[in-house]
Amino acid sequence: MNITEFLELSFGRWRSQRSGHHLAFAHFEEVLSTIDIVPLEKDDAVVLSICESYQVDPATIVHPFRMSWEGESDWDDKPVSGNTVLVPVPDAENPARGKLLREVGYAETIAAVGTYHMSEDGTFTLLTEYDRACAEEKIWFATPNLRFRVATIKTSDGKGVTTASFSSEIRSLSSSHI
Amino acid sequence: MNITEFLELSFGRWRSQRSGHHLAFAHFEEVLSTIDIVPLEKDDAVVLSICESYQVDPATIVHPFRMSWEGESDWDDKPVSGNTVLVPVPDAENPARGKLLREVGYAETIAAVGTYHMSEDGTFTLLTEYDRACAEEKIWFATPNLRFRVATIKTSDGKGVTTASFSSEIRSLSSSHI
Repeated sequence: MNITEFLELSFGRWRSQRSGHHLAFAHFEEVLSTIDIVPLEKDDAVVLSICESYQVDPATIVHPFRMSWEGESDWDDKPVSGNTVLVPVPDAENPARGKLLREVGYAETIAAVGTYHMSEDGTFTLLTEYDRACAEEKIWFATPNLRFRVATIKTSDGKGVTTASFSSEIRSLSSSHI
Repeated sequence: MNITEFLELSFGRWRSQRSGHHLAFAHFEEVLSTIDIVPLEKDDAVVLSICESYQVDPATIVHPFRMSWEGESDWDDKPVSGNTVLVPVPDAENPARGKLLREVGYAETIAAVGTYHMSEDGTFTLLTEYDRACAEEKIWFATPNLRFRVATIKTSDGKGVTTASFSSEIRSLSSSHI
């Protein structure tokens, strides 16, 4: 599976069941949410603006998309919702690798460019470095309508993993997409 | 990482935090347990007996081990414990692949031979086919003292995944091993 196939299979509405593990305290978090992954045109104004801010040629991008989520955690009763735009930029020389640009929110000061690679077994791995931490996400499809996601947060030296989470995401076949 | 390195890194005592997802009902299960993975000699009587029952030459095996676990699930209050002996048999032609023989318990009638492969990114994937279902386990190390495990049960046609679980396993550095 290449990045284009991976993204095309990801479009749609997903019902997500997520378990968070706080490793030091062996604490569990449970979250149910709905995730929408909607393709955008390459010349969408938001997409062009993201390309400009990262100085990326829009001709080199594939399948930009908006991801939105709405859920509820058992750690606090407030619904957790948000959305962001993501822009994949495959490497010209090695299409199994690339960058993932993320829309920077109004309140954010740190750019969030991740690097991804697709492994031969179809796992998409995304690494994003922040100021003091590094996030790793692995996403793969068990079937076309079921994907799994494992996310870990490491300290920036890469040694300590503080939290890990696992999501089972089932496609909502009956829903309409906005 | 090859299978020998993977097994050697796995030996020890692990504190496991496992989340089970029952996909159809979006139900969560939480389990805390202790797992011991202890190497056995290749000429241990149990190992030789397993080799004999599967008609495998003991000279072709690597790092047989006993795995035991003791935990508690929030689905029932009874402690969940057990142990089994596992015998890896790498393929002569492709050492990244092989068979994993499992000790057959007194009450079991079905042999449980799994097939494994190590991917280039160090993920150990084990497939075990049962009468009406197929289990897939992916295990990988985030650090030498932290490993993750994702297990799924599929219907035997490979289409439906009924349950998925995620384990974070932290090495117990202070404990003594039996």
